[in-house]
Amino acid sequence: MRIITADSYLEEERNTTTLEQDNQNLDKTVLEIIQKVRQTGDQSLYDYTEAFDGVKLTELLVSEEEFTEAAELVDGNFINSLRQAKQNIEEFHQKQLEKSWFFHKSSGITLGQMITPIGRAGIYIPGGKAAYPSSVLMNVIPAKLAQVEEIAIVTPPQKDGKVNPYVLTAAREVGVDTVYKIGGAQAIAALAYGTETVSKVDKIVGPGNAFVARAKKWVFGDVAIDMIAGPSEICVAADGSAPTAYIAADLLSQAEHDERARTFFITNSTTLAEKVRNEMYIQLEMLERKDIIKASLQDFGRIIITKNEQETFDLINQIAPEHLELMMENASDKLPFVKNAGAIFLGNYSPEPLGDYFAGPNHTLPTSGTAAFSSPLGVYDFMKKSSIIQYSQEALLKASEPIIHLAETEGLTAHANAIYQRRDGKNAQK
Amino acid sequence: MRIITADSYLEEERNTTTLEQDNQNLDKTVLEIIQKVRQTGDQSLYDYTEAFDGVKLTELLVSEEEFTEAAELVDGNFINSLRQAKQNIEEFHQKQLEKSWFFHKSSGITLGQMITPIGRAGIYIPGGKAAYPSSVLMNVIPAKLAQVEEIAIVTPPQKDGKVNPYVLTAAREVGVDTVYKIGGAQAIAALAYGTETVSKVDKIVGPGNAFVARAKKWVFGDVAIDMIAGPSEICVAADGSAPTAYIAADLLSQAEHDERARTFFITNSTTLAEKVRNEMYIQLEMLERKDIIKASLQDFGRIIITKNEQETFDLINQIAPEHLELMMENASDKLPFVKNAGAIFLGNYSPEPLGDYFAGPNHTLPTSGTAAFSSPLGVYDFMKKSSIIQYSQEALLKASEPIIHLAETEGLTAHANAIYQRRDGKNAQK
Repeated sequence: MRIITADSYLEEERNTTTLEQDNQNLDKTVLEIIQKVRQTGDQSLYDYTEAFDGVKLTELLVSEEEFTEAAELVDGNFINSLRQAKQNIEEFHQKQLEKSWFFHKSSGITLGQMITPIGRAGIYIPGGKAAYPSSVLMNVIPAKLAQVEEIAIVTPPQKDGKVNPYVLTAAREVGVDTVYKIGGAQAIAALAYGTETVSKVDKIVGPGNAFVARAKKWVFGDVAIDMIAGPSEICVAADGSAPTAYIAADLLSQAEHDERARTFFITNSTTLAEKVRNEMYIQLEMLERKDIIKASLQDFGRIIITKNEQETFDLINQIAPEHLELMMENASDKLPFVKNAGAIFLGNYSPEPLGDYFAGPNHTLPTSGTAAFSSPLGVYDFMKKSSIIQYSQEALLKASEPIIHLAETEGLTAHANAIYQRRDGKNAQK
Repeated sequence: MRIITADSYLEEERNTTTLEQDNQNLDKTVLEIIQKVRQTGDQSLYDYTEAFDGVKLTELLVSEEEFTEAAELVDGNFINSLRQAKQNIEEFHQKQLEKSWFFHKSSGITLGQMITPIGRAGIYIPGGKAAYPSSVLMNVIPAKLAQVEEIAIVTPPQKDGKVNPYVLTAAREVGVDTVYKIGGAQAIAALAYGTETVSKVDKIVGPGNAFVARAKKWVFGDVAIDMIAGPSEICVAADGSAPTAYIAADLLSQAEHDERARTFFITNSTTLAEKVRNEMYIQLEMLERKDIIKASLQDFGRIIITKNEQETFDLINQIAPEHLELMMENASDKLPFVKNAGAIFLGNYSPEPLGDYFAGPNHTLPTSGTAAFSSPLGVYDFMKKSSIIQYSQEALLKASEPIIHLAETEGLTAHANAIYQRRDGKNAQK
C-alpha cells in the first residue's frame, strides 16, 4: 500500500479513465444478451444460465419446497442475527417515508405533491458461491416500506441449480416469495422487458458484477435503476487519537470485497501512516481472503498524507467515498465539513461492518465518486411524485394575462388559445 | 385523430418499439462527439457549433454586454409575467426542501440522514429559433433553492451568434451569470467532462432534442442526469360535464410542441368523443402552428373510448402520462385512482399551459410512460443524502455477536475482524 501526498493522489486521478469508459468494452456482449432475451424470452434465460452458470434448469422460479429446504439448512444464530438487523433497518428506513402534501395558495387555488409507490420492483442479488442475505434485507425493506405491490428477486443459481439457502431464508423473512434463478445481464433484461415467466418491473435495484452494471445502464430509460455500481470503497480519515489496530482492520475489511475494491487512509500524521501500514501487514496474515486483500491494496490502496485538516476534508469531498470513517477527536463536530460521502461512520466504534450488516442505514451506497450527486438506496427510491394543480375559474381568469404573455413569447400560440377559450369563450360549448 | 377502444390502444402499444431502441441509431454520432470533446475540449465546441449551428463563435461564454443588450430587447410585459411566474415557482418548490435528521436510537447510538446540495449543476436550454425562458425558470429555481453553488446554462446560439434575449433575461432574473453558447451532444459532453472553459458539473438537467437525450444517457454514471426525455404528451380524461372547447384547445396545445408529441383523449362518451374531434378541426384552422399540430395528431393523437371509469383509470395508469387533465365532476375525488402521472390538472379551469408557465409546480416532467417510476424535476434533484452512524464502545460491543454472525455467513471474515479487534483487542494499540 503506497503512501503518497494529496497532490500526487489528485494527479493520479486526473489520469485514470472513467467508469463509463471502462465499461464500454462490455457493450457488444451485453447488448446481444438484452436483444436475445427480448426476442426469445424464457428460452434465452435457460440457455444463458446453462452457458454462464453451468446449470441446466427446468424451472426459473424457486419452488415452495426449495424455500422449506433452505430454512432447514440455516442455523438459529443466523436467523436471530438477521431478525435483529431487520428490525434496525426497518426502524431507520421508516423515517424516510414522505407524505403527500397540499396547500391552498389563495382563493380557488390548490397545489400539491402526491407521493405514490412504484408498482413493481426487481431486485438483483449476487450469487454463485457467495451468499448475500444482507443485500436482500437492504434492498427489499425500503421497497416494502414504500408499499411496492410486487417485488421479485433475481439471483444466479449455485452449481447444483439451487439458490443459496441464506438468501432464500432472508427473502422469506422480509416477505418476498418470488425468486428467480437468473443472473447476469440476462436477468436485468428479463426484469426490464418481461418474458413469459418474469413480469416486467418499473425499477431494478441491487448490486451486481460489471455485466449487471452495464446491462442496467442500457435498460435505464425504459425502466428505472438505482445506480450503476462500481467497485466498493472506503476512506478512513484519522488523527493521532485513533487506535492503529482499528484503522488497519477497517481498511482490510474493505479490501477483502474484491481485487478492485478501493481503500483510502487519509491522515496528516506520517507516524500514524507508518504504524497503520505495519499493523495491516500483521493482521493481514491471519485473514482468510488475504490474496484478494493483497491484490486490492497493491492496486487500489492509498495512504494519503495531508498538510492539515482543511486538505483532509477537501480530499474527502473530492474522492466522495462510498464509506467514510472519521476516527478523530470530536468526530461529529467535523460533519459540517463533509460534503460528499455515501455513509459516514463517526468515532472509533463505528466500523464499516456495523453499517454493512446491522445499524440500520442502507448498505447500497453510491460508489466511484458518485456520492457527489447520488444518495444511499432508500424508501424514496421506490416512490415517485406527481404534481397537483387545481384552479377555479376566477383564479384562472386572474392569471390569464401572464400565461398568455409567456406562451406567446415562446411562440406557442395554441397554448395561449387554451387560455383564450376559457377567458373569451368564443367556441365554448357544453 | 383516430377514435379507438382501450383494448385496441393497448394492442397498438405492445407492438411499438421502446424509447431505448428508437435512440440506439444515434449512438455512433453521439459517441463520436463525446469522444472528440473529451480529447480536444474547447476547440471541438467551436467546430461543432460552426458545423451544427452555422455560427463561427469567438467566445463560448455570454458576455456582460450581451446580457445588457438582451435586457433592452425584451418588453416590460414579459418581465412582469416572468416575475409573477418566478414567485409562484419559488413558493411551490420551497415546500420541497428537506431537512437533515438525526435520532438517538438508544444509549450511545446516533443515526441520521444528512442532506447536502450538489456542488455544480449544468442546465440545458433548447435554443436556435425558439425561446424557452420558462425552462430557465423551471430548471434553475429548484437548483437555487437547493443552494447549488455553481449553476451554468448551456444553450445553442442563434444564427447571429447570440443567445435568445428572453432566455438571457430569464437567466439573469434567476441569478445565473454563466451561460455558454453550446448546444447538442457537445454541450452535454462539455458539462460531463469539462473543457478549458466549461467546468465539469455533478448533474445535468433540462430538455433537449434526441441527440441531447442520447448524450445524457451516455454520460450518465460519470455524472447525474435528471431524466432521458422523450416527446411531450398529454392525456385528457373527461366525462360529459366538460366543455368541448376546453378539451379540444388543451389537446391542440400539446400537439403544437412537435410532430412527435403524443395526445390522448379518454372518455366513455362516444358523443363527447365526436364533438371534441369536430371542435378540434374548427379551432385548428386559426392556429399558427397548424401544420405541426396536424402531423402530430395524425401520427400520435388518439381518442380512446372506455367502457367505464375503472377502465379509464387503468388506461391512464398504463399510459403514465406526463400531463394528465381530469375534466370530470368532482375531479379531486378521483385522485386516489391515479397511480402514474407527472402532473395532474384537476377540473375545467386547470389547463396544461397554466402548469407549463405559471402555477408553480415544475414543467420538467417524466415522459413516455416513465411517470410510472420517475418524478417531476424538483429541489430533491439537486440534493443528495448521506447516512450517519455513530456507536459508542458499549453499544458496539452489545451488537458484536449478530454482526460477526452475519459477516461470517457471507464469508467476509475481515469484516468480522474489524469487530473482533474492537471487542477482544488483541492488537489494539494507541
